[in-house]
Amino acid sequence: MPYRAPLSDYRFLFEKVLGLKQVSQTDRFAEATPDMIEAILTEAARMCEEVLAPLQRNGDLHPAVLENGVVRTSPGFADGYRAIAEGGWVSMGADPAHGGMGLPMALVSAVNDMMGAACLSLQLNPLMTQGQIEALENHASDALKDIYLPKLISGEWCGTMNLTEPQAGSDVGALSTKAVDNGDGTYAITGQKIYISWGDNDFTENVCHLVLARLHDGGPGTKGISLFMVPKYLPDEDGNPGRANDLKVVSLEHKMGLHGSPTAVMQYDGATGWLVGEKHDGMRTMFTMMNNARLGVGIQGLGVAEGAYQHALAYAMERKQGRVPVEGGTGTIIDHADVRRMLTTMKADIFATRAIALACAIAIDMKTATGDAEWGARAALLTPIVKAFGTDTGIAVAEMGVQVHGGMGFIEETGAAQYSRDVRVTAIYEGTNGIQAMDLVGRKLMDGGEAAFRLMDEIEEVAERTRSTLPDLAEPVWEAAETLRETVEWMVSQEKLNDRFAGSVPFLKGFARVLGAHFHLLAAEAEGGEGPRSNLARFYIKRMLPEYAGALAHAREGAEGVYALSDDELAA
Amino acid sequence: MPYRAPLSDYRFLFEKVLGLKQVSQTDRFAEATPDMIEAILTEAARMCEEVLAPLQRNGDLHPAVLENGVVRTSPGFADGYRAIAEGGWVSMGADPAHGGMGLPMALVSAVNDMMGAACLSLQLNPLMTQGQIEALENHASDALKDIYLPKLISGEWCGTMNLTEPQAGSDVGALSTKAVDNGDGTYAITGQKIYISWGDNDFTENVCHLVLARLHDGGPGTKGISLFMVPKYLPDEDGNPGRANDLKVVSLEHKMGLHGSPTAVMQYDGATGWLVGEKHDGMRTMFTMMNNARLGVGIQGLGVAEGAYQHALAYAMERKQGRVPVEGGTGTIIDHADVRRMLTTMKADIFATRAIALACAIAIDMKTATGDAEWGARAALLTPIVKAFGTDTGIAVAEMGVQVHGGMGFIEETGAAQYSRDVRVTAIYEGTNGIQAMDLVGRKLMDGGEAAFRLMDEIEEVAERTRSTLPDLAEPVWEAAETLRETVEWMVSQEKLNDRFAGSVPFLKGFARVLGAHFHLLAAEAEGGEGPRSNLARFYIKRMLPEYAGALAHAREGAEGVYALSDDELAA
Repeated sequence: MPYRAPLSDYRFLFEKVLGLKQVSQTDRFAEATPDMIEAILTEAARMCEEVLAPLQRNGDLHPAVLENGVVRTSPGFADGYRAIAEGGWVSMGADPAHGGMGLPMALVSAVNDMMGAACLSLQLNPLMTQGQIEALENHASDALKDIYLPKLISGEWCGTMNLTEPQAGSDVGALSTKAVDNGDGTYAITGQKIYISWGDNDFTENVCHLVLARLHDGGPGTKGISLFMVPKYLPDEDGNPGRANDLKVVSLEHKMGLHGSPTAVMQYDGATGWLVGEKHDGMRTMFTMMNNARLGVGIQGLGVAEGAYQHALAYAMERKQGRVPVEGGTGTIIDHADVRRMLTTMKADIFATRAIALACAIAIDMKTATGDAEWGARAALLTPIVKAFGTDTGIAVAEMGVQVHGGMGFIEETGAAQYSRDVRVTAIYEGTNGIQAMDLVGRKLMDGGEAAFRLMDEIEEVAERTRSTLPDLAEPVWEAAETLRETVEWMVSQEKLNDRFAGSVPFLKGFARVLGAHFHLLAAEAEGGEGPRSNLARFYIKRMLPEYAGALAHAREGAEGVYALSDDELAA
Repeated sequence: MPYRAPLSDYRFLFEKVLGLKQVSQTDRFAEATPDMIEAILTEAARMCEEVLAPLQRNGDLHPAVLENGVVRTSPGFADGYRAIAEGGWVSMGADPAHGGMGLPMALVSAVNDMMGAACLSLQLNPLMTQGQIEALENHASDALKDIYLPKLISGEWCGTMNLTEPQAGSDVGALSTKAVDNGDGTYAITGQKIYISWGDNDFTENVCHLVLARLHDGGPGTKGISLFMVPKYLPDEDGNPGRANDLKVVSLEHKMGLHGSPTAVMQYDGATGWLVGEKHDGMRTMFTMMNNARLGVGIQGLGVAEGAYQHALAYAMERKQGRVPVEGGTGTIIDHADVRRMLTTMKADIFATRAIALACAIAIDMKTATGDAEWGARAALLTPIVKAFGTDTGIAVAEMGVQVHGGMGFIEETGAAQYSRDVRVTAIYEGTNGIQAMDLVGRKLMDGGEAAFRLMDEIEEVAERTRSTLPDLAEPVWEAAETLRETVEWMVSQEKLNDRFAGSVPFLKGFARVLGAHFHLLAAEAEGGEGPRSNLARFYIKRMLPEYAGALAHAREGAEGVYALSDDELAA
């Protein structure tokens, strides 16, 4: 069951729904012409379909292992990585000054979507490097940039992020890794980090670790943390990998999925590092990259959803079973209403998620190109939604994919279960989805809801515009947007943040449902209200959108009822 | 993190909400006195906590394997099975005439719940045997009963169900296994069966396979199928295991979870079998047992939900992280509103599921004891809801349990992921949850909705009774019941079954939400509206019940929109 990149979705979304043209019309992204975009998408699709997708099962069946301190990656991953690096897919968004292509995040995101669908465990590697490149571009000294960026951008080296420690997960500020000034422009880093994705590999010449650590004069909490570049091999005078640094992979985790991606416990024993950004400012520096990394992880969820959908659809179209319940049926299980309901639900949610994710990417691009704060606020607002809803969609769609397979879904050889196991972590890493929801109702509404209300205005404007031509679709979207607006008003009027937090996850879910309906409505409008995209919109708006009411009712309930049962009563 | 059986829930539900007393007051179940019930629950709890729960990880870490044609079970499973058999837990519901205890299904279900929570993969073994005992009690000849029932009831032998073949899953009628009359009262069975749970083991003296097969004069489809008892070893003259039968385990499946339960491909090569029930009537015979098996599988979901909840709660109460967001907090993640929301959601859904499942069991008992058709219709109506909602709850709660663990949830050593992987199959086997939903809107509404409306009457009666004392809870339940009633009316008025089927899964989900709210309301009423059960009811009714509206709106949309996209358009 081969993967086919959803090129028609990208073309339709970019041209008819999201207006990528406005990005191409900026000076910053003038090179992203329609021809260029088409060439990029086509070439990336070919690589994902032909090179990466065949590796997907290898990662699961032959996990990365640690042998005598050396990580051995899954069969074929080295070749797959080479294809990614040589195609320039690691660094298509990076600054051309150091060898990148400087392309918009919208295109980067489409390519990440395809790579994640084809082989999630391998795609996580360049995703980490993309984040590292961005952090260095924005915060590193020129000397560091000159050494690291060309190598990272070419893919000869790759990058990791080292935040978590056993007692410092969501609360990064509790970390205890130490940095000591060596007095020669370098620092000695000592401590243990856990959950380091792609902490090592056997296919890049070097592995560059960005490590959060505390200097002796760094205060407690997040404000006393600094960021360091700590490479596996210290660059020599020519910038080539030299002496091994004092760090090692202690062990690899035994995980529920994503077996092709080695998740390492890293030990730093006075390893040599270089400061990135200002002292004690490491969290802010890290956050620059974290926002785009969160978009990237949301898109991982999207990619897996697409892969799992195609996999389930192919099975449903081939599996003969039972009487044919409809005239003109094919005799396979796709004839059955409930199987079709599942498949259409999957497809409708994928479209909604892809639209939201690419809208977020375009907002980032517009902010980059124009500096306009409204675009920045739009991107900031959408980021936690993409991360949480994208990964929740990945989990839900992969789960439905298993169900479409029936008994075969529980058997590993079909590959359906792998999607479900692999994608599960995306709701956890890069800030759990609960953290995303708290970010949405906390930081992202600190503007008094301004960015959110501006988005509601746009949604209602489209609903009003289409009310006469698509009344059955426009009306429910308008009503949903009104309820969402009232819920945002409720949120920003809460004085105690915990009253927001208590309903933050259902709030994010309801928000995403409304946003998804908005983009489906735009799609139906672009199609003139008739055709497959309009039918998909109808399915989404009539059958899936109504969930918003329950979710937003939950969102407005506040914290009291959440603490009504004591700890002991919860355990009784 | 040890498992603790939820005895206080059983006591409360039986005494205050569901009225187990009415069962004990019948002649048939007169022995189920309060003292007896308490003794049974306490003793089963002890066995589950001390013997079975410690085996849970063994099944996952050391799966059952096939070695030279022999199944080797996971370490400790033989001892665990012995404890189950010797305690009489396989057969507590079986007829005392052959050694059973003749206890009500309500108690059987509570014990199955505990055993499933403690070690699902092992519990599946006696669950299959329970079904087989029931089938034989109802349909086998006295000769067969005398040979098999004492051995199955004592647990010396165990039983399996053989329905599925590679091309006959949900459509059992497509099966091709053949039965040939040997002319001596036996039949020769030939064919291959797949997905045979506990197809073999190394701890019972014999394995008794109930096999669906077609006689030469059996027509096509389900009406030409007969049921046969095909034991691994043919009983000798004394009823002891004699010569090996002509059957074998070809292979075991490599599954997503439930590794401790060997799922076999079985090959029958002219194996000797005995007819159970009438010729060509095997499906009806099988269905006798299937209904209770479906209740049993729904309770598996419930059990895993309880296990996963306790596991997550223990972690949340121990894991220190972040600042304490509330006064008087403990400093662990349970202080955080979103973690508490997840845990309370899990607990509230477990209570709802347990209440629905035990209400179904009590209806079965009342039907058994009184023969009253209304009780039979109630049990029949609730069965697919228990199966699908119970297993969906198991999946959702286990999934939330992973999320509560954060990064540790994705690491196998915590055991959180195992609950999620193990329980996944329960939504698939014993009739997929889609099949359950079709059964609910099809067969179970063939009475024109009579049984459903009678249930709505009861729900509204309770809501009206509590309207003055618990207005904030009673009113939403009443409204939800009205919407459910209207949706049932919509369903029964559809002439085309496919219009029902298209929304059957959301219908079942909405139905379960309303039922859950009903039992929560009864719990709050029993507690006088104040206390932990009332607070839990409030959480459920205000935050979770509102989902019903979206689900039931979806349920009423009919089939047209589900087929609006062609197969090609789904694949585009």
